[in-house]
Order: sequence, then structure tokens, then C-alpha cells
Amino acid sequence: MKKLRIGLIGYGFMGRAHSNAYRKVGNFFDLDYECVLQAACARDPEKVQAFARTWGYQSVETDWRKLIARDDIDAVDICVPNNLHAEIAIAAARAGKMILCEKPLSMNAAEGRRMVAAVEKAGVPNMVWYNYRRVPAVTLAKHLIDEGRLGKIFHYRAKFLQDWTISADLPQGGTGLWRLDVKAAGSGVTGDLLAHCIDTALWLNGGIEKVNAMTETFIKQRKHTLTGKVEKVGIDDACATLARFKNGSLATFESTRYARGHKALYTLEINGEHASIFWDLHDLHRLQYFDHRDQGIVRGWRSIHVSDGDHPYMKHWWVPGLQIGYEHSFIHQVADFLQGVASGKPASPTFRDALETQCVCDAILKSAKTLKWEKVAAVK
Amino acid sequence: MKKLRIGLIGYGFMGRAHSNAYRKVGNFFDLDYECVLQAACARDPEKVQAFARTWGYQSVETDWRKLIARDDIDAVDICVPNNLHAEIAIAAARAGKMILCEKPLSMNAAEGRRMVAAVEKAGVPNMVWYNYRRVPAVTLAKHLIDEGRLGKIFHYRAKFLQDWTISADLPQGGTGLWRLDVKAAGSGVTGDLLAHCIDTALWLNGGIEKVNAMTETFIKQRKHTLTGKVEKVGIDDACATLARFKNGSLATFESTRYARGHKALYTLEINGEHASIFWDLHDLHRLQYFDHRDQGIVRGWRSIHVSDGDHPYMKHWWVPGLQIGYEHSFIHQVADFLQGVASGKPASPTFRDALETQCVCDAILKSAKTLKWEKVAAVK
Amino acid sequence: MKKLRIGLIGYGFMGRAHSNAYRKVGNFFDLDYECVLQAACARDPEKVQAFARTWGYQSVETDWRKLIARDDIDAVDICVPNNLHAEIAIAAARAGKMILCEKPLSMNAAEGRRMVAAVEKAGVPNMVWYNYRRVPAVTLAKHLIDEGRLGKIFHYRAKFLQDWTISADLPQGGTGLWRLDVKAAGSGVTGDLLAHCIDTALWLNGGIEKVNAMTETFIKQRKHTLTGKVEKVGIDDACATLARFKNGSLATFESTRYARGHKALYTLEINGEHASIFWDLHDLHRLQYFDHRDQGIVRGWRSIHVSDGDHPYMKHWWVPGLQIGYEHSFIHQVADFLQGVASGKPASPTFRDALETQCVCDAILKSAKTLKWEKVAAVK
Amino acid sequence: MKKLRIGLIGYGFMGRAHSNAYRKVGNFFDLDYECVLQAACARDPEKVQAFARTWGYQSVETDWRKLIARDDIDAVDICVPNNLHAEIAIAAARAGKMILCEKPLSMNAAEGRRMVAAVEKAGVPNMVWYNYRRVPAVTLAKHLIDEGRLGKIFHYRAKFLQDWTISADLPQGGTGLWRLDVKAAGSGVTGDLLAHCIDTALWLNGGIEKVNAMTETFIKQRKHTLTGKVEKVGIDDACATLARFKNGSLATFESTRYARGHKALYTLEINGEHASIFWDLHDLHRLQYFDHRDQGIVRGWRSIHVSDGDHPYMKHWWVPGLQIGYEHSFIHQVADFLQGVASGKPASPTFRDALETQCVCDAILKSAKTLKWEKVAAVK
Repeated sequence: MKKLRIGLIGYGFMGRAHSNAYRKVGNFFDLDYECVLQAACARDPEKVQAFARTWGYQSVETDWRKLIARDDIDAVDICVPNNLHAEIAIAAARAGKMILCEKPLSMNAAEGRRMVAAVEKAGVPNMVWYNYRRVPAVTLAKHLIDEGRLGKIFHYRAKFLQDWTISADLPQGGTGLWRLDVKAAGSGVTGDLLAHCIDTALWLNGGIEKVNAMTETFIKQRKHTLTGKVEKVGIDDACATLARFKNGSLATFESTRYARGHKALYTLEINGEHASIFWDLHDLHRLQYFDHRDQGIVRGWRSIHVSDGDHPYMKHWWVPGLQIGYEHSFIHQVADFLQGVASGKPASPTFRDALETQCVCDAILKSAKTLKWEKVAAVK
Repeated sequence: MKKLRIGLIGYGFMGRAHSNAYRKVGNFFDLDYECVLQAACARDPEKVQAFARTWGYQSVETDWRKLIARDDIDAVDICVPNNLHAEIAIAAARAGKMILCEKPLSMNAAEGRRMVAAVEKAGVPNMVWYNYRRVPAVTLAKHLIDEGRLGKIFHYRAKFLQDWTISADLPQGGTGLWRLDVKAAGSGVTGDLLAHCIDTALWLNGGIEKVNAMTETFIKQRKHTLTGKVEKVGIDDACATLARFKNGSLATFESTRYARGHKALYTLEINGEHASIFWDLHDLHRLQYFDHRDQGIVRGWRSIHVSDGDHPYMKHWWVPGLQIGYEHSFIHQVADFLQGVASGKPASPTFRDALETQCVCDAILKSAKTLKWEKVAAVK
Repeated sequence: MKKLRIGLIGYGFMGRAHSNAYRKVGNFFDLDYECVLQAACARDPEKVQAFARTWGYQSVETDWRKLIARDDIDAVDICVPNNLHAEIAIAAARAGKMILCEKPLSMNAAEGRRMVAAVEKAGVPNMVWYNYRRVPAVTLAKHLIDEGRLGKIFHYRAKFLQDWTISADLPQGGTGLWRLDVKAAGSGVTGDLLAHCIDTALWLNGGIEKVNAMTETFIKQRKHTLTGKVEKVGIDDACATLARFKNGSLATFESTRYARGHKALYTLEINGEHASIFWDLHDLHRLQYFDHRDQGIVRGWRSIHVSDGDHPYMKHWWVPGLQIGYEHSFIHQVADFLQGVASGKPASPTFRDALETQCVCDAILKSAKTLKWEKVAAVK
Repeated sequence: MKKLRIGLIGYGFMGRAHSNAYRKVGNFFDLDYECVLQAACARDPEKVQAFARTWGYQSVETDWRKLIARDDIDAVDICVPNNLHAEIAIAAARAGKMILCEKPLSMNAAEGRRMVAAVEKAGVPNMVWYNYRRVPAVTLAKHLIDEGRLGKIFHYRAKFLQDWTISADLPQGGTGLWRLDVKAAGSGVTGDLLAHCIDTALWLNGGIEKVNAMTETFIKQRKHTLTGKVEKVGIDDACATLARFKNGSLATFESTRYARGHKALYTLEINGEHASIFWDLHDLHRLQYFDHRDQGIVRGWRSIHVSDGDHPYMKHWWVPGLQIGYEHSFIHQVADFLQGVASGKPASPTFRDALETQCVCDAILKSAKTLKWEKVAAVK
């Protein structure tokens, strides 16, 4: 079995999720490649040592440039705040490394274009961790759509609702809170949450032509963890947008961190001529499916418990009725990435795919300022 | 249009539900008969006057014998406590009146047999108000079963759970509380709640061969409203039973007034070889249906919103998606009763049908005492 | 008891719903006024005769001007297509009649202003049938908001989704289909469905400052029932809008008749600082409520079965756990209207209240054309 | 960190679930002990080699006696069919090994008593894999009950419903199908499914006094995989039982493999004086909780998404709203076992705890034969 030696940069929430995926994938998937946890990298030497010990990384680095320079690293995994993605990814590409980058790809589309250029010039496998594509219920939705079961699509609706920043006492910036600092995150819920909705939407329903958005920052000032001062909040707390897809369907997208009662409620619904689909991250193992072709008197939304052996990815796990969870979407993504490396047919979303999401997010944020419909720029 | 002149005895909860049904049925169903609210009867002259005024009854009586003796009454509706059903019904039958009797039919099967004999000898139309058969979702279940969609039945499961008698301070006996007084009610939850489950079960799944039950009275003594004294509680607060149907299926039935959180949770589930059905009174306008013949990857429980024009009874009401409620089951029952009178094909459940439920209840209460399996006696 | 003699114009779906309400209200509510079904009016003499017979109207008219001229009519109920509301209402006001008008108030705000002026000049009680305010779960939501339980409101979200016009074979115009004919309806889903969402939103969350909308007509041409020719479809099949409330909250509204799987899915959600609320017309007897002040480990969305005696309107009906349906919202509205007449404190929504909804709808339709944010005009 | 060297016997479904737990526990829990996958053991040398490779076991054995005899094994994990549990466990105990044994403990209580005697005599840590106790929602239920929130318990209700053996073509016996062979399994659904319900019930609600059960074998004969002949089916396909707990509460338990539409529907409900609880394995990350002490108008079943940091076990995983799955219950059990070894306070259920479940199952199977209430034998 071939080895794929991984150097992971960053040890936060995503560093754990990815490490878990690398460690588990070989137990459940029969692959040509085996993941080797070669090195973990972060600035704090003690913390990165502890992280490496917990997860079984064989070595540590405190400077990502050194990690990239190492000959014994095949792939670099970027799990640091958004403002560092571009520099690291471009350097890694130049060093000939495969790259797995956390989402969103970049701070904006301009930066993203440079990253795409870099990986494509280097010819290295590259992928962005939009993990929800590989929740089995979402993958099943993709299959159903690709089979043409829904017919012409009329409506797409997605929301990602959270409620963790309602308190005005929450500071911005620093470990665990960089998502509230516009300098580190680039944007607020648009890049953090809505980007997930957009990625899935582009995958399931094709390109978006134009958008018309509003954003709001409910809490205008927060203490900054790093400076200790009360500073202006630069991120969007909430974002809602109208959109029109290239296939003629109408869409609404919304994300917020001020929806009391919702921890991570990513929902999506698609209404087609013949059938409709609904999914909800809070019960991620279920897909709701309505098929108008069912006989009238017994027609209804079907609650599909996506845990059978013929459901996407599920033959690798347990037995019907026993659900998997959030972390498994990452394991599936690693499995697909490794198969992509083996077959030469890259697993999506590549940097180029993720750039399209970035273009949509840019148009949304622009529209929220111009207060007008904005066309989504082409990736190229 | 022919008139059916009704004399109603009792003005409690059921008196209202039936009066509402008589008043509304003609607005929604095209029938040969029109209901005329001829007389209301109860012992308290002031209260029965007020009731008659509210509902538009043209006259009142304070003695049910006088009501029965009147020439201008075609049908007698019995809405009084269970211990009075037999005497009134037998007298009404002898007087040649049609009879609509509240459930349960009687205090026990012996009494019920006399009632059946009386109405059959008199040859008068007769019906018992087991109204849940005519909730559209339940009627739809009956249609699906009769079409053979479920195949061989393996399991039947029904419960009727309430929580309104948990307080030890609640008295027994008197208006609104006669259901806690064994002398008026005959039994507790078995005749009040489980009898509904049994009636539906016999209708949907055929005869029950034998039962094995336990009952419990959690609160042993309660003040009696009529005597003012603390008296032994004679009713069953809870009842659970195993049963075997004649078709070979296994069943569990349960009813209680001590299930905190459930107001009137009547649920039933049937598991067949090919398909299963689930229904819940708390959301009575929905039927859950699972069909194993659906394609595997999109197989799931279908939540059918039973509000389309091709669903049972629903073409008479509003438009798809707009739900009807509890009271409509009574209106449907009146419509079917009137059609039965017109056609000569009696609407079910007749006294004879309801006697079968009584025989099952008797066997259940007996088993709870003998602690053994008991055969259900034949109706005849 | 005083009598309120009603003259109803139109005998379609709404004519039935209102007639049912007038007939039933007195059986369940103790009121100073009694509704008398004095006259039904429609152009077709045979059909209006049949309708009057079914519902017990004492007389018929075939010309609404004659109905209005009658001395024995106290209140006029307008149940005809939208393009006739203004003329009839203004004439009825001049004749000194109370007016109950179907929603939407008018074809547009300009027309609505004339109607408001007419009723206010005449000093007659007036109301518009936005019935969903009086679904007990929605009324309960209003109470909870008014008590301040939700705190500052961040988000409002409402949708009204149907799927009955997806077929291109459906004609426009004529009985039952005038809602597809822009000349009769004024607009498509905006006035028919979204107007309900807007009415409730204004009631629950206060005024809307500005909107930004898109509309779409998926089927561009349909045969017209009255002309027999294929004609351009002038209505909006779908409408989605962003909005900002005066209280600073952000909103999304959407309505469509192309959402496969949804018959009449009116849902609304409100997210406040402390608590959130969700309601769904398909299960109208339930309110979902999340209160962040609940202890953390047992915090969750509460599914409230709004059927207890202390829930709005419910003491008038059955017992806890037994649900009422769609039609009851109209009965509650009649009860409140009659109490308003008795007390002199008008029941909402009055014509003036409904005009505010009209102003929002106008702004939405304008925005869909200008492709810009549009301010909602003041009622005055 | 101390090492706990594991020898696993059997490589089926449970062998995978346990191996996964041993491999992951250290990544998520901070423990004194580290699991070492020392040896895997099974009769087929090739298959056990492949299994060891997949999961990282350092060595293999094909004779469990040799495994037990090895000095470098601290704990033996028994994942073989039920008929082999006793012999292996008793030998392992004599060899001084810690033992983790799959459920049910044994073929019957008599065998179980010998196993308890063996481990207690040897003084070795021992545990049985009733994993559902450690689904966080179930553990939360235990906490709520132990805090006294439910008050006096009136009712306990549990079911474990599956539908995978409905086809008469399914053979019995052999790999994957030994659960249908009474010689290997001891019983059918009683030991396989109902035992889970009983274990949780004893934990949550205390001892069971007596039971009254029925069982059924719907398919009387099946081809035997090992003999190739059609043989009588000795297992129970379905089992339903009434029970009385020592605390006075009434219970119903049911398990079947003939409930079309249910893959692994383990549900439990407890109704107490003040509060009730409901849980469902198909959505294992949710606990339904009803508290009567909530204010009346906002009282309802709370759907608790058990994914917050203050919910049992959850601080070790991701962030609120992101669900874990089935396999995590095993990881939690390993964590607790290791903490038990470290602290000397054994994690439950021990062999002795599991023997109590065995005594209940024995009484159930006996009652199904005697057709009478049977007392549950004491463990001692």
C-alpha cells in the first residue's frame, strides 16, 4: 500500500476533525493509499506537541515554511484562519505538495484566483473541505437530482442558522474567536456558514447568475481578545440573499448567528417539477423526499433513514438503522481524495470549484453594500 | 328532503359533539335526510333549557321516558353515563326509535347482549359512537388494508394515553367526573379509552382470540363528589394487555391516565409483510405509511397529510392542506348513519359490532383478575 | 340577544367558510349578537338558490346593489374576486353597512385607500378576513411576543408554499381559477399567499420599512377559461423578498405555487434574543417554542399542542388533546368581530390594518420591477 | 501512560465496533490507560490476518485458548456467538484476564451465574457491552431520573423493532446469520434485542419483579447454512411482555424482527408524576422531555439535541449541533471501563449487572411457555 504523508497546519476544531478522518479512513475503506500522520505544525511548541501526542503525529513543526520544505511530506492540510490560506497554499503548491485546504478557500475571489493559478500551475492535487457534500443524505440528494428525478427545478432554499454570538459580552479575535475578527476571517457568517450552503447549491443545482443580499451586524462593537480594547466589529452577523440560478430556478439563502434555538441548523430544500428534497444538519442521517409520481392517496414526504448498505458510503459502516455523525463526512472526503489521487480524477471540490463559491460570496457581500442585484463573476 | 327528528339525552361533552354534528352535516354532505334537533333531555330543567337554546333544540324534557314516548322523535341519542345506557336503549328500542348510543355500549357484555337483542328484535337502526373510525386518516388506513397493501399482518400496537387524573386531589363521581366512579362508568380506562383502541382494531384487523392483561389503580381512594366522603376507587387507572388476533398477529394494547405529557395520545401501528401504518390522534390529519415495495434508496415512512379531495370524506371540506379536527369524525358518522338509514345498509359500528368490543374488554378485565390468558367470548 | 343580519356576496370557497362561521359561532361562544343568515347574493340565480338552501340563507339576490340597498341587512360580507372588492365595499359603506371583506383588501394600495376613506367616513365597523391571526397557536405566539418573552427580535421568516399550478395544462380565469387571471386577482401569489404572511408579520412584529423582491412567472401563457384563447399570464407564480422591519429585525418572505410537496405550507419563525417561535399551517394546532432561559441540559424546542383550556380560544371547544382545524379560525374571527361591534372596540384587522399589508405588497411588486430596495409607503 | 493490551476474539460486526472504540478513545478522552491492539483471534487464519491488518492488531491467533494463555494480553474481548461466551469467559477469568464480553452475557441465567462466579473469584475487571447506556441522550435520561425530576414512576415502555428476517428465503446459521440459529444464539429477539431494552430499563428504573410474555416464531422452518437442510427454527421471532417493576410502575416491552419499516427502532419512554422522557435509537442524538412544572401555556415536549458541552460525554467531541452516532456509545464505554480500571470502581454493567438482565430474559421465555406470570429470579 502506498503512503500519503500528511503535514497538518493548525490544531483547532478542524485540525481534530481532519486528524480523526486520516486515522479512521483506512479502517473502513479499502484504498490504495494509507494516510501517515507525518507532522503537525503550529506556532506554540507545547500545544502542538500535546496535539501530536494525542493524535499520533510523528513529528512537529512550529513554522509552516519548514513543514512545507520537508521532503517527507506529500500533502499539506491547511487548518488555520482564513487570512493565512493563500500564502500557505501558494507556497505549498510551489513546493509541489498536494493541498487540502479548509473552507472558505480564501478571503475573497481575487486571492482565490491566485491560489487556483498556483495549484494548477504546479499540477498538484488540491481540495477544499466543504465536508457537507459527503454527508450520505446529501450525496443521495445529488444522485437523485442527477438521475433527473426532480425534473425542472423551480426553487432552492438554504439556511445555516446558529445562535452562539448573541451575547454582547463575547469578545472578538484570538483562539476560538477569530471567526468574529474580520481581519482573520474576511467576513462573518457569509464566509463561515453561507459558503457551505453555496458550495452545496452549486454542486446540486449548478451555477448562480446573480444575487441580491442584505447583511447586518447586530453588535457593533466587541472587545478584541488580542488588543484588549473595544473595537468595531467588521464582520456580518447575518446575511440573507435572493438569487437566480442559471437553470432558471429562484433561491433564497440565509445565515446568521442570531437565531435563538439553532445550534448548527443547516437546511436545504429543492423543489422540482416532479419531486422535492429536504435535508437538515441537525438530523443529518435523514433525507426527506417527496415524489409527486407516487399514487395520490398515499403520497407524502418520505423520511429516509439514510443508513442502508445501498445508500452512499453506508456499506462501509454499520448495519441499517445505525446512524453515523458529523465527523464521518470528513472521513468520506479523505477516502474520495485518496481515490482521486490514485485514479488521477480529482475529488471535488477542488480549489477551482471552491473559487466559484468565493465568487458568489463576493457578489453577495458587494450586493449588501451596493443594495443592488450583482452578477456573479466567472471563475476564469 | 326527509327529516330525522332527534331526541338527545345528556348535555355534556358528548352532547355538544353530537349536536354540532347534527347541525353541520347538512351543510357539507348531500343527503336524503335532514337532522332536526327536536328535543334535548336532562334532569336539570334550567341547564337543559340553556343547552337547548345554545344548540337550537326545539323543546326540552327532564325525563327520558317522556322523551322516548313522544311521537315526534325518530331517533334517540344516548349521551349519559355508561350505567344508564342499557335501560334507556332497551326502552327506546321497544318504543321503535332509532338509537345512537355513546360508547362504550354497556357496563359489560351481558348487558350489551340484552341491548343487541332489543334493537334487533325491534328492527331499529342502531349505532355506537366509536367516532375514531371516521377520522379520515383512520378510514384511509382501513382502505389500504382492505386493498391488501399490507399483506399478512404480524403486529398490531395501540395505546391511548392521558395524564389528567394524576393528582390525588381530584375527586370521583358527579358531573364531569363520573368516569372515575366505577358505579357510573363500569370500568376505568379500559371502557373509556382502551375500548376505542379495541373498536378500531377489530375493524382494521379482525377478531381477537385471547388476551392477557394487567390493570392498576394508582390512587386507591378519592373523595366522592356526591357523598362528600373519601371512598375506595373502583376503576382501573391503567391497563395493558397482550393479545392474539385470529389472523395470527400479535398485539399490545395499553391505556392510562397517568402518562405525563399526553393529553389524548391515541396511537395505532400495524406492521404487515409489505407495508406498515401508523396514526396518532394528536396529529389526526396525518397517516404515516411505509411501503417496502418502494425502491430501496428512497424508501421511508411517508407522512401523508390526509386533506386531499381523494382522501376519505375530504372532498366535503376545504382545499388540500387545510386540516379538519376532532369534531369532524362525528359529522362523518352522522352522514354515514343517515346514508345507512336511507339505503337500509346500516352504518357501523352497530350495537352488535360494539358488543364485540365489550366482549374483549370483559376478557381483559377478567384476565387482569385471574392473571391468566382469557379467551374472548363470542358475541352470540 | 341582538341580531346581526348578514348579506353574503359570493358563494365560493370563502362563502362556505364564512357561512359555516356564522352558523357555528353562537353554539360555542357566549355573545351579545346572534348572526342571522339574511341573504346570499350571486349572479347565477340557480346556484345562489342552491347555496342558500344548503346554508340556510333566508333569501337570495342576484345583484349586489340590491342587496346593499336592503334595509334588513346589517352587514355585508364580500367574498368575490379581488377586482370587485373596492366598488362593493365603497357602496356598502355609503349605504351604512358594516363590512367584512375577504383578503386581500384591494387590487392595490390606491384602491385600498379609497376603501379605508369610505368606511371611516361612514363610521361603519369593518374587517378583513386575514383569518390566520386567529389560529390559536398564532394567537398564542402574539401573546408570548407581547409579554416580551422573545426580547429584541433579530429575525422573521415566513413562507407560504403550494404546488397546485405546476401543470401547464391548467387554464386561467373563471370559477375557481380567477386567482390565475391578473385582471381578477391583481397579482398572483403576492396578493393571495404572501399577503397572509405580511398580515401576520405586521401584527406580530410591527411595521416593515423596506423590501427587496424578485418575482417569477414560470408558465408564461395559459388558456383563458372565459375567452378560450391562450393568453399571456399576468400574475406572479412565485415571489421572494428580503425585508427590514422598523424594529431592526431582518426578514425573508417567500410564496409560490411551484413548491412540489406542499399543499398550503404557511410557516413562520421569529428569533428573538431570549426565545424563538415556529408555526406551520400544515399542523396548525402546534406551536414550537424555544426558550433560552430553560436550564441548559434540558433546553430544546417545545412542541406545544395548543388545545388546552388556557390556550387562546380553546376553552370554547373540546378537551385537551383534541384538535380543531382550519375553519375554526373564521369562527374565532366572527366571535371577535361581534364582540367588537358590541364593545365599540373594533376587531382587527380593520380595513386600515389591511391597507398596511397592501402597501407592503405594492412595494414588493414594485421592487420586483425596479430591482431595487423600495420603501413601504405609509398608510396615511 | 499505562497500557492495556487487548486480545479480541471474533471479527464480525461487534469486533469492528470494539476495535474502532479502542483505536479512537485516546484521541478524545484524557485517560490513564492507553489501549494497545495486541492480538486478534479467530479460527480462519486468512480472515483474521486481514482483519488484524485493517485494524492494526499487532498479532493474530486462531485458537482462543492460546490467546488467553499469552502473557502480553491484559484484557480479553469476547465478540463471538452467545454459545461460546461462558467457556471463554470462565477460562479467561481463570487466566486472570480482564474481560469485556458482548451481550447478552450468556445463553441463560444458569450459565451466567457460573460466569459471574468465575470473574468474581478471579477478581478481574469485567463488563458487558450493553452499549446503549452510553448514548449521551440515554445517559442524560439517567441523570434526570437520578435527580428525581420525574418523581414517582408510573409507566415504562420499550420496544426494539426490526424487519430484516421477514423473507422466508433467509437461511439460519453460519456467519452473519447465527442469530437465527437457536443453538448459537440461545434465543431470538429476546436475547438479541429485548435484552438491550431490559438492561437500560434496570439501569433507569430499578429491578423487575415479574413478567408475563408471549413469543412467536412466524417462519417455522428455514434452511440451515451449515447443514444445507431445511430445519425447524428454534428462536423467537417476536416477543412481547407485560412487567411490573419493584417501584410499582407498569411496563410493556416488545421486540420483533417483523416490524416492516423499522431497521433498529429501539424506543423507550418513562412516565413519571412530574415529567416524562422519550428516546429513539433512529435519532439517537435527541431526547424528548416533558416537564409538567413548565408554565401551562408553553408546556410541551422538548426536543433536546444532545450535543452541547454540558451534555454527557459531549465535551469530548465537536461543537453544539453536530451529532455523533452509534459507534460513539462503544467509545464511551471503553473510556468508562478504563477509568474504572484506573479508579478501582468498575464501570457498569458488570457481569453481575448483566446477569440480572439474563434473569429477566429467562423469566420472559419461561412465561411465554407457561402462559403465566413468572417471578424474576434473584441474581444471587
